[in-house]
Amino acid sequence: MTKREINPFDYAADIFKAMPRGILLTSEAEDCANAMTIGWGTLGIEWGVPIFAAYVRESRFTWELLERTGEFTICVPYGENYSAQVVNKAIGICGSMSGRDLDKFIKAGLHVVDADIVRPPAIREFPLTLECRVVFEQVQPVKKISSRFKKFYPTAEDDTQDPHVAFYGEILKSYIIED
Amino acid sequence: MTKREINPFDYAADIFKAMPRGILLTSEAEDCANAMTIGWGTLGIEWGVPIFAAYVRESRFTWELLERTGEFTICVPYGENYSAQVVNKAIGICGSMSGRDLDKFIKAGLHVVDADIVRPPAIREFPLTLECRVVFEQVQPVKKISSRFKKFYPTAEDDTQDPHVAFYGEILKSYIIED
Repeated sequence: MTKREINPFDYAADIFKAMPRGILLTSEAEDCANAMTIGWGTLGIEWGVPIFAAYVRESRFTWELLERTGEFTICVPYGENYSAQVVNKAIGICGSMSGRDLDKFIKAGLHVVDADIVRPPAIREFPLTLECRVVFEQVQPVKKISSRFKKFYPTAEDDTQDPHVAFYGEILKSYIIED
Repeated sequence: MTKREINPFDYAADIFKAMPRGILLTSEAEDCANAMTIGWGTLGIEWGVPIFAAYVRESRFTWELLERTGEFTICVPYGENYSAQVVNKAIGICGSMSGRDLDKFIKAGLHVVDADIVRPPAIREFPLTLECRVVFEQVQPVKKISSRFKKFYPTAEDDTQDPHVAFYGEILKSYIIED
């Protein structure tokens, strides 16, 4: 198994094409690792460095882990080595269950791979990997978001009602895991 | 002149390749249009829609125009129709002068083109265009940003010291202007 280093921007179209169907974000604290399905995220440049910003609700186990250690990986399906069935099963499990209750990697049949710089793992079956360290985070107050998107906050009457937190991660290393 | 509609994510690599050298953001209020050079920005998905987030300091004329009307275009050099000299001159002027003092389009020899949905114009010489409407904006408090990036805020001792404001624009339409 090798990691072929890439410029993440060269693969932006692949990341955005996969995102609506679900990609994975891994986080880890005190030897407890977790994977969460995400369908939102932004990629680009701020403060002169490459950034991936993830949006995670405060209620999530992932939010707890990110608050504790401030590192994550973004893991994207890529290539033909793994069947749509394997990928979709993992996206379903990691998007519907909580890492508080079970090890989602085992449940989904995913093989973790040590990351090079950050503590959270990469995932063999989601080989396009961005290793990220949080350089800025901020709650997105529901009342400031366009009313068009209130459907995402059905119970929100104030900002205590499970808003998203934007985690701006500096992309430290990017690669594709190749068998 | 035609506008060839595109999926902005298919052109993400082109946008990010151009960004470090400078791309333009246009804004407009009460028939006063302006163009500003930006080297930072993030592209992706939030609230289920395509987003381009721009980061603009409160001191900028562009910040005033965005606060008033909440619309912008992102204009990216693309293709071979315009020389590097024309493009670089515009990037220099729009990155060093203030639209409070002069019409930067005229000074830079740029030809504005009516946008299809938003009020700020597109630019013929920067043909890859994203038309955006702000759906969320938020000051990025300097004290919450990683100390690694304090060089961008040399006089900042509190959050009144010219922080960036993140303007999350929903991408309403994307195209390449073709002669």
